[in-house]
Amino acid sequence: MKELTHDHLDDVARGAAILGTGGGGDPYIGRLLAAAAVREHGPVPLVALEEVPDDAMVLPVAMMGAPTVMVEKLPSAEQVGLAARTLAGYLGKELTHIACAEAGGVNSLIPVVAAAQLGLPLVDADGMGRAFPELQMVLPTIYGVRATPMAYADEKGNRGVLDTVDNHWAERLARSAAIDMGCSSAISTFAMSGAQARESMVPGTLSLCAELGRLARSTKSVAAVVERLGGRTLFTGKVIDVARRTQTGFARGEARLSGMDDDAGRELVLRFQNEHLVAERDGVVLASVPDLICVLHTETSEAVTTELLRFGQRVTVIAAPADPRWHTEAGIELAGPRYFGYDIDPVGVTA
Amino acid sequence: MKELTHDHLDDVARGAAILGTGGGGDPYIGRLLAAAAVREHGPVPLVALEEVPDDAMVLPVAMMGAPTVMVEKLPSAEQVGLAARTLAGYLGKELTHIACAEAGGVNSLIPVVAAAQLGLPLVDADGMGRAFPELQMVLPTIYGVRATPMAYADEKGNRGVLDTVDNHWAERLARSAAIDMGCSSAISTFAMSGAQARESMVPGTLSLCAELGRLARSTKSVAAVVERLGGRTLFTGKVIDVARRTQTGFARGEARLSGMDDDAGRELVLRFQNEHLVAERDGVVLASVPDLICVLHTETSEAVTTELLRFGQRVTVIAAPADPRWHTEAGIELAGPRYFGYDIDPVGVTA
Repeated sequence: MKELTHDHLDDVARGAAILGTGGGGDPYIGRLLAAAAVREHGPVPLVALEEVPDDAMVLPVAMMGAPTVMVEKLPSAEQVGLAARTLAGYLGKELTHIACAEAGGVNSLIPVVAAAQLGLPLVDADGMGRAFPELQMVLPTIYGVRATPMAYADEKGNRGVLDTVDNHWAERLARSAAIDMGCSSAISTFAMSGAQARESMVPGTLSLCAELGRLARSTKSVAAVVERLGGRTLFTGKVIDVARRTQTGFARGEARLSGMDDDAGRELVLRFQNEHLVAERDGVVLASVPDLICVLHTETSEAVTTELLRFGQRVTVIAAPADPRWHTEAGIELAGPRYFGYDIDPVGVTA
Repeated sequence: MKELTHDHLDDVARGAAILGTGGGGDPYIGRLLAAAAVREHGPVPLVALEEVPDDAMVLPVAMMGAPTVMVEKLPSAEQVGLAARTLAGYLGKELTHIACAEAGGVNSLIPVVAAAQLGLPLVDADGMGRAFPELQMVLPTIYGVRATPMAYADEKGNRGVLDTVDNHWAERLARSAAIDMGCSSAISTFAMSGAQARESMVPGTLSLCAELGRLARSTKSVAAVVERLGGRTLFTGKVIDVARRTQTGFARGEARLSGMDDDAGRELVLRFQNEHLVAERDGVVLASVPDLICVLHTETSEAVTTELLRFGQRVTVIAAPADPRWHTEAGIELAGPRYFGYDIDPVGVTA
């Protein structure tokens, strides 16, 4: 893919929602926003990560907040551009590329909106290879890239810049602002050079999203998605309970699934904070962060985001391996189960 | 006064604590910080408000947060300078003068610290003629001066810039950051031209603080303070109960006083949010914002800040008239009793 046109957006959004592991936003909304931006400004040039020049100025953009809120209060296109322009102004540098902080139904498409608005190319990469709930949880953190100076903006025109002593402080202050702004804000963060981007980001994410989305749409096969991701199927069942609370700026909760087919008589519990963190079958952890836990409609292989989980849905839960750098000591410290309060070692896809 | 030397600081802090109406910080801490700054950088030139040139760039600085916290976690001198420098950098303009946002034991002295550090003169004025708990509650708001762009900083080196659609949004976002930063932050806000400062600020506040402080120290007479402020004595008694909670970033609460001398047999309740908002004697409101309600030690006429109110203290509660602009419709809307949730018309000093 050399550019993202209107025709790619549906597949990118579908695929991104799978990698979003329940978070990263509703693909329907992501697609709507990106389609409007591409209609207005034309297709967005896509640049492979290895082709980004050393001295490029790469700016990842994203929405921050609770996806439960974002399905009712849509991000505005202006808000996204405002966050990017505010940071560029503060840095006093010219941006050369926009990038994705994470993969997700909204967060893979918001950068398309920003790139279209600012007339900049988009890097075919992201900071995680999946979605995670907190700002500092990107591979660039491991490589010493600073989250700040960062900027945030709301749809009313309020905006701010943060310059913090570490990336955890950036998360804390930006999260409070997002909560004040109605539990969602547009952010531009982890501004980095091309050299830093090549070292620290995950290459090919948008291409992978497009491929996964196409695969899911054309085959409707969960097995095909599992195979493409090198993952495995954890559980097939029916959603029987969802406890969801929008708390401290996140969509937190648990979902209970009653097994069907081979899993009849068993129960799976999914624990999430925007994204699925842990999948537990009858008290045994089958998979956990940093690996991907994705909930797909059994019949269509479309991703179900945590905010849209509903009683009665028939779903298949799959696990897929995270970028290997997430399995290093630094990766586990940043986004392993213990960070989220689960006193277990990470349970991987091959476990 | 043409400059503030070490010898003035004690009186300025004492007087400022009286005008601080219970808030604005502990004068002991304000004096300590200013004394260290003046010792290091020399006396601070003081400029009368009417002498500030039209095209001056005046920057008020202050501490934001709960005074209950500030007595345990002292502001750092670096923090104050950082907030001012961060804003100057964002504005891309050179500051010419530092000013006080409000009168208060800390907040009249923090600008001395900033002025000394930055080598700038201090304007003999403030934004209220007293202290109020929220950021937008300054006379410049009435004159259309914007609180933002503003900057905030903590003692660890975290800092941020805000640019909001109105001054209430500035308060909201800056308050959340202050809470995250440990319930106290240094802020630089309401950057304005000399012309705007002359139109909207209260002249002579630092001179008045010095005079009041000297008066209180030399005479130890509450009556002398009352006379100088054109106020009246509301109640003399003993503190019998203080309910104080640090909540939503403020020191909120009530104090109950049992009457002595002429007030024997009566009870006064003071309700505060950092500052005293309402004084009620046996259920009748004797005084309310926007006028000043000050609690003074009966024996020494020294101010007692809300965070230092203690069972058994013998105090005299006085009221003094606010700057007349606080009694306009816009002033009452901004800082009258109804804004704070009391469904009453303002009760003035002469009521």
